[in-house]
Amino acid sequence: MKNNAICSMDTDFAQWYTDVCKKAELMDYSSLKGFIIYRPYGYAIWENIQKYADEKFEETGHENVYMPMLIPENLLKKEASHVEGFAPECAVVTKGGSDSLEEPLMIRPTSETLFCEHYAKVVNSYRDLPKLYNQWCSVVRWEKTTRPFLRGSEFLWQEGHTIHATEKEAKEETLRMLNTYIDIANNLLALPVITGKKTEKEKFAGAEETYTIEALMHDGKALQAGTSHYFGQGFAKAFDMKFLDKDNTQKYVYQTSWGISTRLIGAVIMVHGDDNGLVLPPKVAPIQVMIIPIKENDEVKEKVDEIYNKLKAKNIRVKIDRSDKSPGWKFSDAEMRGIPVRIEIGPKDAENNSCIVAKRNDYTKQTISLDEIDTKTEEILEVIHREMLNKAENNLKQKTYTVEKMKDMEEKLNQGGFVKAPWCGKESCELKVKEQLQATTRCLCTDKIENKKCVCCGENAETYVYFARAY
Amino acid sequence: MKNNAICSMDTDFAQWYTDVCKKAELMDYSSLKGFIIYRPYGYAIWENIQKYADEKFEETGHENVYMPMLIPENLLKKEASHVEGFAPECAVVTKGGSDSLEEPLMIRPTSETLFCEHYAKVVNSYRDLPKLYNQWCSVVRWEKTTRPFLRGSEFLWQEGHTIHATEKEAKEETLRMLNTYIDIANNLLALPVITGKKTEKEKFAGAEETYTIEALMHDGKALQAGTSHYFGQGFAKAFDMKFLDKDNTQKYVYQTSWGISTRLIGAVIMVHGDDNGLVLPPKVAPIQVMIIPIKENDEVKEKVDEIYNKLKAKNIRVKIDRSDKSPGWKFSDAEMRGIPVRIEIGPKDAENNSCIVAKRNDYTKQTISLDEIDTKTEEILEVIHREMLNKAENNLKQKTYTVEKMKDMEEKLNQGGFVKAPWCGKESCELKVKEQLQATTRCLCTDKIENKKCVCCGENAETYVYFARAY
Repeated sequence: MKNNAICSMDTDFAQWYTDVCKKAELMDYSSLKGFIIYRPYGYAIWENIQKYADEKFEETGHENVYMPMLIPENLLKKEASHVEGFAPECAVVTKGGSDSLEEPLMIRPTSETLFCEHYAKVVNSYRDLPKLYNQWCSVVRWEKTTRPFLRGSEFLWQEGHTIHATEKEAKEETLRMLNTYIDIANNLLALPVITGKKTEKEKFAGAEETYTIEALMHDGKALQAGTSHYFGQGFAKAFDMKFLDKDNTQKYVYQTSWGISTRLIGAVIMVHGDDNGLVLPPKVAPIQVMIIPIKENDEVKEKVDEIYNKLKAKNIRVKIDRSDKSPGWKFSDAEMRGIPVRIEIGPKDAENNSCIVAKRNDYTKQTISLDEIDTKTEEILEVIHREMLNKAENNLKQKTYTVEKMKDMEEKLNQGGFVKAPWCGKESCELKVKEQLQATTRCLCTDKIENKKCVCCGENAETYVYFARAY
Repeated sequence: MKNNAICSMDTDFAQWYTDVCKKAELMDYSSLKGFIIYRPYGYAIWENIQKYADEKFEETGHENVYMPMLIPENLLKKEASHVEGFAPECAVVTKGGSDSLEEPLMIRPTSETLFCEHYAKVVNSYRDLPKLYNQWCSVVRWEKTTRPFLRGSEFLWQEGHTIHATEKEAKEETLRMLNTYIDIANNLLALPVITGKKTEKEKFAGAEETYTIEALMHDGKALQAGTSHYFGQGFAKAFDMKFLDKDNTQKYVYQTSWGISTRLIGAVIMVHGDDNGLVLPPKVAPIQVMIIPIKENDEVKEKVDEIYNKLKAKNIRVKIDRSDKSPGWKFSDAEMRGIPVRIEIGPKDAENNSCIVAKRNDYTKQTISLDEIDTKTEEILEVIHREMLNKAENNLKQKTYTVEKMKDMEEKLNQGGFVKAPWCGKESCELKVKEQLQATTRCLCTDKIENKKCVCCGENAETYVYFARAY
């Protein structure tokens, strides 16, 4: 079962990850550290995520826009905690053409400030609200340690920025988009997630509240996979975003922002992959079915075309591998690329008007009559999605622990997973856990808590919180 | 007929253009010169162009990828004529995070060098060819004079980059993509174009041949609307892009690149617009039909919903304007935004089971029974496309002149349009015409030429060439 082109997951998970990224041709390195090339197969996954997300955004009334890539330094500085968070990791343009610039320009690390400046100009009355804008673009954050899809100096993402007349509406929007992200994770990517509010220490620079979805990777580490922020009126005041309300008074708007990125590709790799390579959830797979003819005579060819046409008619993304490689090579190539379903058909199958359908996720095979290959394949793709989600859910459940003592937490963290523990709410305890156990708070847990002591300091606990070692 | 919110086209075309861009809410200025905000309505036009182009690219076997946004200076320098063309207009990043960079990084003005570097790494054998990649992104070119959509320091575009085993294939690809651009111009945007090869002086930095599509704006000036380049082996040699051919020898690849940009939005505005604002070709219009209820009682409401549902069922992009504005305000708003079809329906129409359908392009109105509103609207949208294309074609024909003398050329250029003239082929004559008449060569004309003298120097002419004043 083990593909020798890549390292085994359990031998060296980081090496396995890099091998899969490269061998499945998802990406390549450029000569500039932290800036990767999204190859066709990797980019097609991203396009499928975009398509699904765009539909959800549109259903909820959002509109796409495009803002400038560069932010004047003074604009970025307008909101104090925001600039503090982002200025240290900006790429700075100091020359344009042959001229030195008077004011340095930052390549956007995120675009709150640009949206705020625009909103302040175009919004006058309650009639102009809400504004529900979204942008697909790349952003740059100068990172010291980088890894394909997980942490790059440049990455692709979407950033939604909305403004509302009331606090209630803005808070609803924050949670609506969090739920959209849960939908994308579960229903498109077969990724179960833990979700909740970030602590004060971990929230977004400039936000009042940050909600997150957190997934659990195969190696037991957590990955933040999407965030939704409620800003209150902080930016509104800094950027003078006011509107005339129905009661004829000027009010500041309430604001949100939310984002998911190409990190999701990293999550898919690390949650579903195995020692033979990528395992793609069917709904996001650029190729859902690969047909591999074996000893292709006229009859096989005819049947292969029949299968292809029947699947196409069902809008299944199907390809035929007629390259001059051996069937064995083609099997492992389809496995490496994580194609959910492989159909094998040779002269004997053709004679019987059947073919062999192999599932990537569990390596099971079944013989299926060509008369029902289209409906059966559709069903199998659905089944694969459910099986992948279930498997990942079980893994997440098994690796989510509740502890009350530091030493138990250490033990569980060493095994890998989320560790739910009572917490006093003080940053000093977060810092101490990070220093001692290399784990951070991932999000608050809303479970009721009574008479518990903080896992770290032993004082009264305010809440449960999920700790994990994280990417 | 004249909308007072915008300047008249014939009074001040430049002001009219800016007014339309702003009042139709296509864009807004940011605080950074040359960097515009693509507002939802403008960006939706671009998304429709992307969708149409992507289908054409996919049909011809192209794949989307994403390359880094930054190019190390040394990489850009690898091909001599290319760097000469682009280095003077690059935005340069000299700081990353808190560190000064050892090597300056250019924000991509175009991505040939990045594609070359990647291709050199991943292509080994003739089996790996052709590579047919495309990228949608934004690029930065530091411009002194900028105008929304037409010339910006940042603009959105697609750049295709392909490599091939033979010269013949690469040349075919260059023309195939030129033809795709003609298709997009004619069949999506209702834009007729003149097409042909650029002169040596006007071709792309690094290309052997550049083909162009050129459209004629309402004010008689030309606009380069798309280009397709054949590179030969220039970049291949500079970047060592070699492959092992079937005959077992190492060969350099042959290369192309081709691009269209948000300039096309500018072309649509300036070819089709009128004194009441934008006039959008139906296929690219974000809203194809706006239904405006008048004195909406229960019966009208019912009929409005019926129309809406029938058009939706035909996949027509339809909206209902139920804002609290007056019908007159709504009519001119729909006109300003160039919505191809407006449907008006009041109590009397509802009683008659009919509505009034107004065409944006020629202001004609017709009464149509609700029983056939869906099929008729479909037809009318088709008719509008043909009428807009025909009108623009007639305008292009009428304003394309053939001259043999400088003084005639001057007269025609003053009237506005393309001027076809015999040309000796020398750059000195191009420069002289530019200096004296502010006109440039747009493209070569393949018409047969015999015994003609160069319009500029009077020596034997090699070819006809189109001159025009251009954006």
